[in-house]
Amino acid sequence: MKTPILENNSVQKIEIIKVKGQSAFNFTDDIAVEEPLEIRVSYHTNGDKNTKNISVTMRTPGNDAELAAGFLFTEGIISSNNQIQNVGHQQAECSRNQENIIIADLIEDFIPKLANTDRNFYTTSSCGVCGKGSIESIRTVSPFQNITRTQQNISVETLYSLPEKLRSFQSNFSSTGGIHASGLFSLEGDLLALREDVGRHNALDKLIGHALFTDQLPLQDKILLLSGRASFELIQKAAMAGISFVVAIGAPSSLAVDLAKEFDITLLGFLRENRFNIYHLGENFKIENAV
Amino acid sequence: MKTPILENNSVQKIEIIKVKGQSAFNFTDDIAVEEPLEIRVSYHTNGDKNTKNISVTMRTPGNDAELAAGFLFTEGIISSNNQIQNVGHQQAECSRNQENIIIADLIEDFIPKLANTDRNFYTTSSCGVCGKGSIESIRTVSPFQNITRTQQNISVETLYSLPEKLRSFQSNFSSTGGIHASGLFSLEGDLLALREDVGRHNALDKLIGHALFTDQLPLQDKILLLSGRASFELIQKAAMAGISFVVAIGAPSSLAVDLAKEFDITLLGFLRENRFNIYHLGENFKIENAV
Repeated sequence: MKTPILENNSVQKIEIIKVKGQSAFNFTDDIAVEEPLEIRVSYHTNGDKNTKNISVTMRTPGNDAELAAGFLFTEGIISSNNQIQNVGHQQAECSRNQENIIIADLIEDFIPKLANTDRNFYTTSSCGVCGKGSIESIRTVSPFQNITRTQQNISVETLYSLPEKLRSFQSNFSSTGGIHASGLFSLEGDLLALREDVGRHNALDKLIGHALFTDQLPLQDKILLLSGRASFELIQKAAMAGISFVVAIGAPSSLAVDLAKEFDITLLGFLRENRFNIYHLGENFKIENAV
Repeated sequence: MKTPILENNSVQKIEIIKVKGQSAFNFTDDIAVEEPLEIRVSYHTNGDKNTKNISVTMRTPGNDAELAAGFLFTEGIISSNNQIQNVGHQQAECSRNQENIIIADLIEDFIPKLANTDRNFYTTSSCGVCGKGSIESIRTVSPFQNITRTQQNISVETLYSLPEKLRSFQSNFSSTGGIHASGLFSLEGDLLALREDVGRHNALDKLIGHALFTDQLPLQDKILLLSGRASFELIQKAAMAGISFVVAIGAPSSLAVDLAKEFDITLLGFLRENRFNIYHLGENFKIENAV
């Protein structure tokens, strides 16, 4: 097999062997790129500049600044776009990967909330061992828990139209079959933004980072569509961004449902072109023509 | 909607609303349980006993001791079953979750390799920002890099039979539609062990923990079947366990393929009942009746 050739930085061409029945043939295929990204923050204390490594995530390159900003926001380390001065790559020492470190430079008079980041994996799950405690800690750090929600109607037809819209715009999935997407839609079903990644949490962080950069937060009057399953981590990120309507193509987990109920986030799952399951319907939402 | 009732600790009954077309009806459904598990190690230095929190992972309860042991092994913190004296739950302070802390008590004269665990997310990815560096660090910590592999033949028919075998044994998936599985098969296609979890890395850690407890490592003469996609993290864990034949139902990522090539691990993807893709074929394997 030949060495893979980089076509762009999200998808890579690779020489594979396809086997069908008892036949085998060479084939040039697309594969989703996965590379580590180290996210760092740079901030000032008493006139000194400090840099701290926050996380290493395995991600698909592309929209790295959004990913970093979205991650810092959904982990509660920053709470506003105004706290960021600049986000950019720093060259790593290894020759192979030029863009695998990203630094968020924070403004001078802002101290990031780094207290929980030494405890690995879930910053906002400060209790850690207790799902209930994790949910409470999100309530503490989320800046959008007391926003006013207006009464909203969504039609089943709008919901049924979403999977096909996501698929038709999900450029990298169709070629690699291996990339998750997070899509942001209006309540009328118009696609507003779409981000892709090998990691579903990264796709959502990119999307929320995009909304942060474009001053769209909180996203309480939008639909978040997840291409796969809905885990606790994804609903946690949605809650942090003030999202109150989440639809997954796949199944939710028990803790995702618990969190959705606690935060009154509408959570639908197994969305297809003519059906879905309602795990929680938020008080301010009515689904027209069905429920 | 009613409060969910715990049926067993992996799957939970939940009252949902199913919408089909323009009809809606109440339905009692199964949902995959997701709960945090904090993994701790207890070890001795200079006569003192120390306990260190290693990680919090969101997992499906069940086989927690295997998960903890498998995680410690695949992260290079321990290298043998003999280093573990006991693995058991410790009661958490929160009333809701009785079994969300697990402690691995290590034997007296063994010091675990904890150097990298303060750096979050990927212990074995000590370089972090460099995929190549991550691969090198796995080579350093894996105890099974120099094992002798014998020449092996696997028939395409054996491979084609695996997805259906996995599905028929995957008890929780069929009811919840939301659980990943890792299956261990003989080269003749007999299922040897199966573990499930909402997190694909946890399913594999449980499987490797099982192999560790039953002294089956290294697993160089077995087939590992992954129910979903093959990421770097999964191939990393496979490499740590000496697995040299990995088959995924889904797509691999670029770094997963790179790692498979570096460690000469056979990596197949998109396995169906009559086709698959070969991303890397290990030197000691021959696939009969096709390639």
